[in-house]
Amino acid sequence: MGDSLPRVTDRPTPVSDQARAVKAASRALATASTTLKNDALLAAADLLEGRSADVLAGNALDVAAAEDAGIAAGLVDRLRLDESRVAAMAGGLRQVATLADPVGEVLDGWVRPNGLRISRVRVPLGVVAIIYESRPNVTSDAAALCLKSGNAAFLRGSSTAIHSNTAVAAVLREAVSKIGLPADSVVLVEDTSREAAVEFMQQRGLVDCLIPRGGPSLIASILENATVPFVIDGDGNCHVYVDEHADLDMAESIVANAKLQRPSVCNAAESLVLHADIADDFLDRIDLVLAGVELVGDERSRSLLDRIEPASPEDFASEFLDLKLSVKVVDSLDEAIEHVNANSSGHSEAIVTDDLRSADRFLDEVDAAAVLVNASTRFVDGEEFGFGAEIGISTQKLHARGPMGLAQLTTAKYQVRGDGQTRG
Amino acid sequence: MGDSLPRVTDRPTPVSDQARAVKAASRALATASTTLKNDALLAAADLLEGRSADVLAGNALDVAAAEDAGIAAGLVDRLRLDESRVAAMAGGLRQVATLADPVGEVLDGWVRPNGLRISRVRVPLGVVAIIYESRPNVTSDAAALCLKSGNAAFLRGSSTAIHSNTAVAAVLREAVSKIGLPADSVVLVEDTSREAAVEFMQQRGLVDCLIPRGGPSLIASILENATVPFVIDGDGNCHVYVDEHADLDMAESIVANAKLQRPSVCNAAESLVLHADIADDFLDRIDLVLAGVELVGDERSRSLLDRIEPASPEDFASEFLDLKLSVKVVDSLDEAIEHVNANSSGHSEAIVTDDLRSADRFLDEVDAAAVLVNASTRFVDGEEFGFGAEIGISTQKLHARGPMGLAQLTTAKYQVRGDGQTRG
Repeated sequence: MGDSLPRVTDRPTPVSDQARAVKAASRALATASTTLKNDALLAAADLLEGRSADVLAGNALDVAAAEDAGIAAGLVDRLRLDESRVAAMAGGLRQVATLADPVGEVLDGWVRPNGLRISRVRVPLGVVAIIYESRPNVTSDAAALCLKSGNAAFLRGSSTAIHSNTAVAAVLREAVSKIGLPADSVVLVEDTSREAAVEFMQQRGLVDCLIPRGGPSLIASILENATVPFVIDGDGNCHVYVDEHADLDMAESIVANAKLQRPSVCNAAESLVLHADIADDFLDRIDLVLAGVELVGDERSRSLLDRIEPASPEDFASEFLDLKLSVKVVDSLDEAIEHVNANSSGHSEAIVTDDLRSADRFLDEVDAAAVLVNASTRFVDGEEFGFGAEIGISTQKLHARGPMGLAQLTTAKYQVRGDGQTRG
Repeated sequence: MGDSLPRVTDRPTPVSDQARAVKAASRALATASTTLKNDALLAAADLLEGRSADVLAGNALDVAAAEDAGIAAGLVDRLRLDESRVAAMAGGLRQVATLADPVGEVLDGWVRPNGLRISRVRVPLGVVAIIYESRPNVTSDAAALCLKSGNAAFLRGSSTAIHSNTAVAAVLREAVSKIGLPADSVVLVEDTSREAAVEFMQQRGLVDCLIPRGGPSLIASILENATVPFVIDGDGNCHVYVDEHADLDMAESIVANAKLQRPSVCNAAESLVLHADIADDFLDRIDLVLAGVELVGDERSRSLLDRIEPASPEDFASEFLDLKLSVKVVDSLDEAIEHVNANSSGHSEAIVTDDLRSADRFLDEVDAAAVLVNASTRFVDGEEFGFGAEIGISTQKLHARGPMGLAQLTTAKYQVRGDGQTRG
């Protein structure tokens, strides 16, 4: 790096060689002290600001290539870095340094009748692999969370951001090695071919956990190709159910917030379920609030509000990520729960109600990572839950479910202490 | 069932139809009270004893077929049931009824600055699929643990035990439905073809967790074919490292216990690692104790004890499950840890030492589900850990690591309670 432009090597290292290197580095990182890990994060933040010219030079190459390729202006904007975005990336590294270190937490412990003392202790996973799409800040954000939780970071970004990612990774590697951790604590795969992506998903025995950050095609590729353990950061077909016992003012503000505050994210609402007793009143009020939103619905909702277009079964199963909302009218809480469970992607599901029994039944019977009573689905993320940062939101049930912070980047180890016990 | 022989249907229901039925049943089971679940387990125990003639008749068909096929006597014996083995299966069901119900446990909870109250609550996984080899008691043991943890059990046993498994499953289904839970809380796949096994591993969206109970070829098939989330109950290449600071009497009894007490199980020791300073003395003592054990080792160990045969690299990576042990001499704790980490299957690893620093370093730096100081590796199982029962021992890092009891058959759900909060 230094004064030359960031460079993508002509003949990239094979992915499996890189995986072995990152695995070897993970041993040192697993037992690194919190102080050392924080020093690495702070050094990386300083160096990122100090080398922002390198990073911006790399980014300029990516932006130029994206513009040449005729990529939509919105996407090019997401790709583009400037001094303030680099400063924000550095700020992210510093913020992760302030978070509590999850490693070493004693989760529980007990003594057996034979005197064996058993503790379950939180330890790093080892190598966390992250495959992600265009935004270059994911490179530093993901590496920071991995480092803080004692994991080596194995990263694979998209070709669109390759020069930016290469520059950022080089800075991170230099910073961690400067404070005495292996440079291979952070390894970026520079080969952006599809074959390399598949290879990246198949480093069994070297990668302890793979996390995708991207859209449905990336998820589908993981499901098809991955042979390493993974956690799916899946889509959010989130419902808000307005119960017959709802405070309709509250329901109005929650529905508006869940749909409108940031429609492009996974915890935005995609579907509105209404109890028949309040459906007419509620559609009257919400019509104006949702004036800019395309509505599709079942026949009953369409009989109450003219502008609702017919919904296909796919509409009820879709994450629109847009100003579009499906509407369904139900006769009972049972029907609402059944509809939600049949269509939910298992992300976040909300009920608005003043009835205790409806609230309790919805909380118990709806099968999702997060269920909410009288609150917007938009609260379901790591920051809003108080985790300080998140690597994603898991929609699967194994290992981690819901927002994933530092703790979800760890596993547990049993430590058993005896004084010569043998089994009879 | 009743007075007719247990029968395997000629044209089995497609696996996907069965998966849909068990998924539907899982909804009712997820919110069933502990009392109801215990009643089901006790009813199943009583019915299993009451119908033991049916079960034994089915088993007789399997045993006859196995004998006709010339299957080894030891395996036929594992397959064979008698009144006392059926009584033991019933006892297992009753014992699971006495265990604490993990469902509903509040794992943690906090209040956010905006007043949102967040709890993380233990909930069933939904559908737990178990694929297993010949012993018919797994049918009732696995179903019991699933039921108690609020999960529907989707079972696929081997063709060798199909009539026994069918009879046991019929009894369990009758018992749960008699006390008011869906019969499909327990579903056995009667199609024992290889195609059905692969289909069983691919019911994505219907099966929440797949657990294999069997040998390396079953695990390999899961890794190759499964598209549902799974937890690997893998093999145990367990080491005992005798440190230079070990009490050699203690080391002798621990090594003998770890190797000899039950050589055929995953937590038995397969490899002995000796510090050079005590290697000669220790091999002298252990030679007699391990008289019936085939020893293979590195050159240094062979120079100390004549009867040690040369070990291949595969020997150091092997789970023998037999009266065979690999021996390696090292010069330092570092070398011991490196050797263990390079060859470990991540199951259970032990050190014998009186030195605090050696103990702490081994506990911290060895990467396995369980690490032990001055105790036999044989203690690493659900019963010995105090879980009451186990479904297996996970050698993976995601979701569950080490012995899996009822708690490991659950996931968590965030319950968020507000009073109208929206995100700013």
